[in-house]
Amino acid sequence: MERIFAAYLIETPYDVEQAAAVLAGEQSSGTFISTTQELEEFRKLYAARVEHIELQEEVSVPSIPGNYKEGTVFKRAKVIVSWPVGNFGYNIPTLITTLLGNIYESTQFSGLKLDDFEVPNSYREHFRGPKFGLRGTKALAGVELKQPMIGTAIKPSLGLTPEHTAQLVQKLADAGIDFIKDDELLTSSASSTFEERVEKVMDVINAQADKTGKKIMYAFNITGDFRTMQSNYETVVNAGGTSVMVSINSVGWTATKQVCNWGGLSVHAHRNGWGMFNKHPFFGINFPAYDKISRLAGVDQMYVNGIENTFGESNDSALRSIKSCLKPFLNSESVLPVVSSGQWGGQAFETYNRLQTTDLLYMAGDAILGHPSGLEAGVLAIQQAWNGAINGKTLEETANDYEEFRALVYKFANRELLNSESVS
Amino acid sequence: MERIFAAYLIETPYDVEQAAAVLAGEQSSGTFISTTQELEEFRKLYAARVEHIELQEEVSVPSIPGNYKEGTVFKRAKVIVSWPVGNFGYNIPTLITTLLGNIYESTQFSGLKLDDFEVPNSYREHFRGPKFGLRGTKALAGVELKQPMIGTAIKPSLGLTPEHTAQLVQKLADAGIDFIKDDELLTSSASSTFEERVEKVMDVINAQADKTGKKIMYAFNITGDFRTMQSNYETVVNAGGTSVMVSINSVGWTATKQVCNWGGLSVHAHRNGWGMFNKHPFFGINFPAYDKISRLAGVDQMYVNGIENTFGESNDSALRSIKSCLKPFLNSESVLPVVSSGQWGGQAFETYNRLQTTDLLYMAGDAILGHPSGLEAGVLAIQQAWNGAINGKTLEETANDYEEFRALVYKFANRELLNSESVS
Repeated sequence: MERIFAAYLIETPYDVEQAAAVLAGEQSSGTFISTTQELEEFRKLYAARVEHIELQEEVSVPSIPGNYKEGTVFKRAKVIVSWPVGNFGYNIPTLITTLLGNIYESTQFSGLKLDDFEVPNSYREHFRGPKFGLRGTKALAGVELKQPMIGTAIKPSLGLTPEHTAQLVQKLADAGIDFIKDDELLTSSASSTFEERVEKVMDVINAQADKTGKKIMYAFNITGDFRTMQSNYETVVNAGGTSVMVSINSVGWTATKQVCNWGGLSVHAHRNGWGMFNKHPFFGINFPAYDKISRLAGVDQMYVNGIENTFGESNDSALRSIKSCLKPFLNSESVLPVVSSGQWGGQAFETYNRLQTTDLLYMAGDAILGHPSGLEAGVLAIQQAWNGAINGKTLEETANDYEEFRALVYKFANRELLNSESVS
Repeated sequence: MERIFAAYLIETPYDVEQAAAVLAGEQSSGTFISTTQELEEFRKLYAARVEHIELQEEVSVPSIPGNYKEGTVFKRAKVIVSWPVGNFGYNIPTLITTLLGNIYESTQFSGLKLDDFEVPNSYREHFRGPKFGLRGTKALAGVELKQPMIGTAIKPSLGLTPEHTAQLVQKLADAGIDFIKDDELLTSSASSTFEERVEKVMDVINAQADKTGKKIMYAFNITGDFRTMQSNYETVVNAGGTSVMVSINSVGWTATKQVCNWGGLSVHAHRNGWGMFNKHPFFGINFPAYDKISRLAGVDQMYVNGIENTFGESNDSALRSIKSCLKPFLNSESVLPVVSSGQWGGQAFETYNRLQTTDLLYMAGDAILGHPSGLEAGVLAIQQAWNGAINGKTLEETANDYEEFRALVYKFANRELLNSESVS
């Protein structure tokens, strides 16, 4: 029988082999009844298997505090466990329960993090993955493959009327932006109902598309209960929109999958709440596993942090996330990584140097909406940064070449550095 | 405008007031653009407010490791924040995003735990809460209000055929059990397809109900994608079942709500994966907040750990969870607390002494299926334990009175203690 393989980082006050065996047993055919020979044969068929244990360091302080005796040693290891696909078939919520269920409460573990998992080939027949993904989303937004998509979120998050939002969209459209989105805190508020916002915003975007041939992508936040999401989705389709946003942790896997199944719009997956799963270095889930779960649902665009993000995630970890999005999975198109968190254009250089790709949606907030010369200059400045990076220029050279980007360097980076570079 | 109030435990390397202000600002009308006077007025209407700060201890080791300077002091506080309801209206996923969103990634916090929240009265008009809840679920299972419901899960989790499962159900029915459920790892497996299991199990349960007038409740695990859940739910309805089980963290809030909306069956909410949200004492969510989110979805039965559980949760914390379930919320019926994890009957005494209630579903596994004299004796023993507890007897007295319960004390508790008590 085909198997699913999962890699965990574990930390345990017990013997590592024992803890790994408990993980496998608890998450498969665990029992406490004495069974017949015949049943034992059945059980073996469905049992999880510890495939590999790689011991790591020992620590004296547990990752998750607990009632441990003074002097307890906590052993860390990388463990690979496998399950027969027949245990759950192609039921992803049950796969999630298997990978991430009761073991997270188990006293066997003072730390536990699912790092990644692999599904067998037959999954390709059951899961399409992203309908639009990287290439389809860029095509919908009229962005060339060799260019990054440039985007921003409307701010303030709350308190704008649909007219205010439409005015901002008009300015951003005139400035040449590719992508705009609602803030994740806004779906339908007292000052901005969903329907009215879609109407006013799409009036601007459709008129612009008629004029220029390019339809800016706006991700409307449809997050809600099932009926709300269904009716909001239809509102966007009927208005000629191309994208919806879903707070995937707030609505959950099953609803996210259903939205992706509808198949008419590129789905922008916002991962707010992700910190709860990932902020602890030795507890929760790492992005490669999370990304695969989302791609099994079929999301087209997935949040990651960028280089020098404001959430404190290391550059290496942020780059690992971007690479995860671009890694082949299922038959499907890559998911478009949405690079965000404190991005102002200056990070384009290291991002491009280390990844050598423009396969991303680059979200800038303050750099665009708060550009000292206005948001038109802000959009231009981000484009300048990426053009510089792609053409092998340094940040300093690009700042010398372009006034609008230079203003961002003055605002966000060490201006002394820039001045000394400008002089040399 | 009505407001929603939320209580957090925070831990920060910064000034507590500043961190609380960031929490409120980030999760409401945050902006970085200079706005007009008119817009400022709007923004104030939607802004979150820090209502109360109660300083707690300072610690030298952060709850979540990070790149902190040697000697950094981490300040803990209880903080109450409020939001105007107009920000999200009655959209619970957006409320979840507001309560549990990007702040969990914020560098302001080395620890952050949502403890509880309060919704205004108008929520009663929009959310029914549990359709069956405590009383309706007991009524469906033919259990008197003054008796606890006694239940068990079918084991082994995986590997049984529908015939095996039905045989076990027959034995448990003959023994007088109230409630049986699928293991959370089993929905439809190679050895036990969902449809066939429902058919075989309900044949037994319906025949038993015809004979005795009592229809045992079996919670079939319908966890899956939207269409799977819909069709599995219908299968259970058509077979005359009374309950379905949903792994709520694996399917998410929106799908859970939709299942509850269907309204024909009591929804057994399994919280596997909960450890990820709660195991760390200073990061994630506490049960009172989690319970309210679930009740807004409308689940009827909700998992909690019991006294002396095997997951290492303290008795006080487990009892707080049970009390949360029984606390009035919305207009609605209480949710039925599903007391579980290492329960073998011995805990009935302290549970009853401290809560003075039988408003619960008491789940025993090994104590029933692994009872030395067979599962019929196991069911009887758990009933004996509860009868003893309700009638003011001690564990020792009850063990002296009843042979079946005595066997469990020998198996699970300190037999020396029992012997000395028996002699005295």
